Amino acid sequence: MERKEISQAVIVRLPRYYRYLGELLEEGVERISSGELSRRMKVTASQIRQDLNNFGGFGQQGYGYNVQYLYEEIGRILGVDRKHNMIIIGSGNLGHAIANYANFKRRGFIVNGMFDIDPDLIGESVQGIRIRGMEELESFIRENDVQIAAITMPKTHAPEVADRLVRAGIRGIWNFAHIDLAVPEGVVVENVHLSESLMRLSYRVCSMEDGQE
Amino acid sequence: MERKEISQAVIVRLPRYYRYLGELLEEGVERISSGELSRRMKVTASQIRQDLNNFGGFGQQGYGYNVQYLYEEIGRILGVDRKHNMIIIGSGNLGHAIANYANFKRRGFIVNGMFDIDPDLIGESVQGIRIRGMEELESFIRENDVQIAAITMPKTHAPEVADRLVRAGIRGIWNFAHIDLAVPEGVVVENVHLSESLMRLSYRVCSMEDGQE
Repeated sequence: MERKEISQAVIVRLPRYYRYLGELLEEGVERISSGELSRRMKVTASQIRQDLNNFGGFGQQGYGYNVQYLYEEIGRILGVDRKHNMIIIGSGNLGHAIANYANFKRRGFIVNGMFDIDPDLIGESVQGIRIRGMEELESFIRENDVQIAAITMPKTHAPEVADRLVRAGIRGIWNFAHIDLAVPEGVVVENVHLSESLMRLSYRVCSMEDGQE
Repeated sequence: MERKEISQAVIVRLPRYYRYLGELLEEGVERISSGELSRRMKVTASQIRQDLNNFGGFGQQGYGYNVQYLYEEIGRILGVDRKHNMIIIGSGNLGHAIANYANFKRRGFIVNGMFDIDPDLIGESVQGIRIRGMEELESFIRENDVQIAAITMPKTHAPEVADRLVRAGIRGIWNFAHIDLAVPEGVVVENVHLSESLMRLSYRVCSMEDGQE
């Protein structure tokens, strides 16, 4: 496997390459030069060559990159060619938004369970997915081979739910709660802290107001 | 102003300090040493001292940091002590989720308008905020002194909406659409690309499955 040689910095950029290549495919573009990709992505051509050379064999001098091949290879490296069963803990608006992203399914993420503590929500269905009570969490994870859980509930009970998820065998937590979760080795957490993102925006807007950006 | 001397790397970390300090305040903690903050945040104490020394005068040798003072100063630097009027373009689940985050209001972000193209949504209210049609966009921004717009609509029309926002005087765009927006100097874009975040999670889960993490 070539995967282990790829640096974290490159990995962080791969989903963006994947998105642009997907758009090129939709436009019917079969080949693209690093120069053209550079103009589109607003990244230097040398950065692109350096990043894509990590996988080797994608580009041919003078011919550009084969878009379909590159798209599939990057998809394979990102693991989006594999199927991952996913559940959502917290069936409020954010949970619904994530369940509705048809996109995720196309990329191998299959939401097959949603959970909540609100009796008014339990039993309802979102996109054909039934919302269940928290007492069913562990059995559902085991019986449905669930690897990934999105936490879209308030932060108060998030650490305790994360512990339950880990004990039930979840491998990856997509955490939207505004709290850092402690998980053992072998489990990964990817955070989406919306309020931190909004504060970075606020900082940059204020810097401009003060005439410093 | 001290702001201009602060590096981007520190700015990116500030919202996390702000969150931890807010939690300490809620617990009634008045002072904290860099060592204790380091244990909580899982960052080295020297990193903390180095980051917080950027603002000067926060820590006193042997006494630790004054939590309230530090919280307020970082809040001021991030601009969350100022009021920012904000609108949301796209009133689906994600738009609703953002409108419901009471948190945002506490930190100076006031959502006072929501927009959509769906006639079934227009005229509805979310948390007392009326959903309006897109034809009201420009006049609403001007009449309500709106500085920030969240784009929570599908990517297809996002660039065209971003252009309208910029022309109407928006200073910051919080972009959830899966597309990179081109904006002129003087306007900032903060992206939240959920599918890229999920792909990073996928990559890390797959790396573990392959025994490499």
